[in-house]
Amino acid sequence: MTKAQSRREELRDKLIGAAEKTIAEQGHAALKARALAEEVGCALGAIYTVFPDLAALILAVNARSFGLLDAILGRQAEAAAADGGSPRAVANRTLIALANGYLDFAAEHGGRWHALFDLRLPEGQELPQEHLSRQDALFRHLEAPLAVLQPGLAAAERALLARSLFSAAHGMVLLGLEGKLVQLPLPYLREQIALVVSAMGRGLESA
Amino acid sequence: MTKAQSRREELRDKLIGAAEKTIAEQGHAALKARALAEEVGCALGAIYTVFPDLAALILAVNARSFGLLDAILGRQAEAAAADGGSPRAVANRTLIALANGYLDFAAEHGGRWHALFDLRLPEGQELPQEHLSRQDALFRHLEAPLAVLQPGLAAAERALLARSLFSAAHGMVLLGLEGKLVQLPLPYLREQIALVVSAMGRGLESA
Repeated sequence: MTKAQSRREELRDKLIGAAEKTIAEQGHAALKARALAEEVGCALGAIYTVFPDLAALILAVNARSFGLLDAILGRQAEAAAADGGSPRAVANRTLIALANGYLDFAAEHGGRWHALFDLRLPEGQELPQEHLSRQDALFRHLEAPLAVLQPGLAAAERALLARSLFSAAHGMVLLGLEGKLVQLPLPYLREQIALVVSAMGRGLESA
Repeated sequence: MTKAQSRREELRDKLIGAAEKTIAEQGHAALKARALAEEVGCALGAIYTVFPDLAALILAVNARSFGLLDAILGRQAEAAAADGGSPRAVANRTLIALANGYLDFAAEHGGRWHALFDLRLPEGQELPQEHLSRQDALFRHLEAPLAVLQPGLAAAERALLARSLFSAAHGMVLLGLEGKLVQLPLPYLREQIALVVSAMGRGLESA
């Protein structure tokens, strides 16, 4: 690596770190190029030598947030499996644990969570492949119990179902946390999610 | 009604009509007081003699949108009942029909739909009781089939479950229509919703 390259890498890391802090504490709408440049001690224009725009910087932070969510979901799945029981019982419990893990992530990391969903890319830009792969990795946590509950489902259909179930859990977390239609304290929201997700699991099993 | 009152009523109706058109065609973010005043032919300040702020005007449009959604859901429930079968079969079919009716509403009336959910009231304001009653009326469409599938559930718990199921359907419609995690053409999205909602219905029935 040339000296210029390594300085560029260093600036990149600093910018992601500073943006990560802002997003985690205040949300991505609070991200301003001028404040970032001041915080990391670079010229305003230097930001754009590393990232084409702020959306690209937010995407880099989102990659880290996906990592955090992935770790939370992995722990939830492990804990659900550790409690033993039949493969189907474990699969049902895992679905509930994953939904509640997602609720925890959203409740504790609201800024990161919103940045994952609310980010609008500039017109004409598509999500980079690397980002889509990270999403796919997350859905694998859901696909594993679904393979147990509906062993006959083809892989492509299972992938689709995992995304649909995730969307359903996302809706409950979203409206629940934002108090849009139901204003529920967190433990009650957790109960409702368990109720609905376990019904889905039982229903899928009996299909 | 005095002449002043009737002129105020007339201005109110005109403002709601103009705002409804803007929201339906361009979304509530496009609503600007100056443009509204021009369209209905009143002074800018006159708007605020009828509505305390634009949020109150959007709420008045939302009341009409709730009416539209209510009519769509009512038609869906009727059609599902008309196909006959056991009460449980009808209830399961009704849940799917309601979710798909909600999808239709969101797909065809995107501006109205977003205004229902994205509206942020000014700090300290709460939703008026009348608005909450309209929401409750919508959820009754869902509570009816739930009463068939889980006859033992107390009314308060059924009301909660109806909201949770609605949230789950909302999540699928939201992420599906906005192409956030799954980019599905509408007929496939409809299939996925039917798949997940019917699993929920079966699961609730077997609880």
